[in-house]
Amino acid sequence: MKFGILGAGSWGCAFANLLVESGHDVLVWARRKEVVDEINNYSKNSYLPNVKLNFKATNDLNEIIEFSEFLVIAIPVQFIRDVIKNIKVWNIKGILNLSKGIEIKTLKRVSEIIEEFTNTPYSILSGPSHAEEVANKIPTAVTVSGSNAKLFQSLISNDYFRVYTSEDIVGVEIAGALKNVMAIAAGILDGLGGWDNSKAALMTRALHEMIKFGKIFGADEKTFFGLPGVGDLMVTCNSRHSRNRMFGELIAKGHTLNELIKNNKMIAEGIYTVKAVVEIAKKKNIEMPIANEVYEILYNNKNPKSSMVELMRRPLKKEWLI
Amino acid sequence: MKFGILGAGSWGCAFANLLVESGHDVLVWARRKEVVDEINNYSKNSYLPNVKLNFKATNDLNEIIEFSEFLVIAIPVQFIRDVIKNIKVWNIKGILNLSKGIEIKTLKRVSEIIEEFTNTPYSILSGPSHAEEVANKIPTAVTVSGSNAKLFQSLISNDYFRVYTSEDIVGVEIAGALKNVMAIAAGILDGLGGWDNSKAALMTRALHEMIKFGKIFGADEKTFFGLPGVGDLMVTCNSRHSRNRMFGELIAKGHTLNELIKNNKMIAEGIYTVKAVVEIAKKKNIEMPIANEVYEILYNNKNPKSSMVELMRRPLKKEWLI
Repeated sequence: MKFGILGAGSWGCAFANLLVESGHDVLVWARRKEVVDEINNYSKNSYLPNVKLNFKATNDLNEIIEFSEFLVIAIPVQFIRDVIKNIKVWNIKGILNLSKGIEIKTLKRVSEIIEEFTNTPYSILSGPSHAEEVANKIPTAVTVSGSNAKLFQSLISNDYFRVYTSEDIVGVEIAGALKNVMAIAAGILDGLGGWDNSKAALMTRALHEMIKFGKIFGADEKTFFGLPGVGDLMVTCNSRHSRNRMFGELIAKGHTLNELIKNNKMIAEGIYTVKAVVEIAKKKNIEMPIANEVYEILYNNKNPKSSMVELMRRPLKKEWLI
Repeated sequence: MKFGILGAGSWGCAFANLLVESGHDVLVWARRKEVVDEINNYSKNSYLPNVKLNFKATNDLNEIIEFSEFLVIAIPVQFIRDVIKNIKVWNIKGILNLSKGIEIKTLKRVSEIIEEFTNTPYSILSGPSHAEEVANKIPTAVTVSGSNAKLFQSLISNDYFRVYTSEDIVGVEIAGALKNVMAIAAGILDGLGGWDNSKAALMTRALHEMIKFGKIFGADEKTFFGLPGVGDLMVTCNSRHSRNRMFGELIAKGHTLNELIKNNKMIAEGIYTVKAVVEIAKKKNIEMPIANEVYEILYNNKNPKSSMVELMRRPLKKEWLI
């Protein structure tokens, strides 16, 4: 099959390599000319060092659309709208979204953004899948949800990349968006000197905060106990590859949000998603203590340590009345 | 209150210090005279280095029983029977068990072992609580289940050690026992060179394997999604303090079970519990792929890497039919 991929970040490139290996034709779109040139001339991308890339790239959006049977979205959520609004003709068979987050200015999930522009069948792939490891063929298991889930399962699965299916698009989208926020909190605990007990307790609470949020939008609780939920939460809160976790760690060590945004070309999606989450939670009256603390630390200069200690000192209740 | 603690390992000692700090009188029992002497003469214990111990110890079991209003059990599960069978008079108000595992020779949980000897009210404390961190007052949250749960909650909770309550003794016991087995598998993935994606997928599956096992014995699924389940699983699979995880890591790096048992004075409970789990699973016809692989690696010299790759290559199904 012919796959066009929007976005040449680490995940876009790792996924492109994966598709090539499964026998598909792949063309990747990057916004920046120098990224396209690096890929086409040297089969390399600085976002994914030490990996040989087995595909070509373009910065011509029309070329991608003409080429593609399926379109993969792998650009940061806050930029998706700006890219896809330029697509004039949607003669493709299906969209597969890899991006996780909520658009700040509209409070929409990716499926809702896409819906504004096309009714092309939408699916989302999520789960614990750091690009660096997929590129190095480390065994990985993910979930695809959407009308083409079974098709994508058969097109993408191989020996080291296992695709499971789910019917809960909303749950998969919300779990993927929120775990990035929670991973910032986890990283903060790492940055305080490795509070492993606190981190495990916080992550347990995080899972339930995610479920509470998801249920408001009709998500299935089960999704949060599977690969796109607890699985992705675990890897994002613990892996050295996790940008959101690392971001939290640096914040706890005294760096500021502005400084990190300026110096870091990798985007930690959670720093944007948390804004949308806190706003939605306020509107819908959902208690989100962890997301709130992350927001306060990032945007209101709350002290990370006292914030985390406060979270841990919340009143004692029965385990299930948190 | 007066608390006697059976067991002067790292958790027994950290918990003793915690109780002293909450204003209780504490006496700790250790089997070995040299451990008792080290505590009484130097306020130290090599299992918990760099921590000043604020209590006295004895190796006279009668002295502990005469002293105690509440008895805390903090000895490895396989040795609990041998110790408590020597207790002649059970004139104490309640037992609080900290030990996690299943007795190999009887396939019993700790509550069932205790039941053979006394009908003293039994409670269990579990959750992500590495001794080293509790001793250093890192914020920690745990769950107590049992008839005295609320009492223990009020007696033990302080600013950095938060006790929640639950009504599901069976679930708390099973989650605590099984997570040690799963952490060996997680450690094996670490030992293969840091397969973070695989580890997160495996841990997601592990949670469901634990639930499947627990349900056979009437455990409440919810328990596995709380501190004693996913919380404890997370810390045990990820923390550098986790002995079971470290044990798995060393196995993956080519060490053998016998060699590790001989050289390591810290006990990784999972290496015993896995035997009981696999036997129970066989009897009850519960499919436990991860526990089985851990057993095969430890006791039948199966290659850790091929075992983990096999686990990841299980047939593709819907996410919820695993």
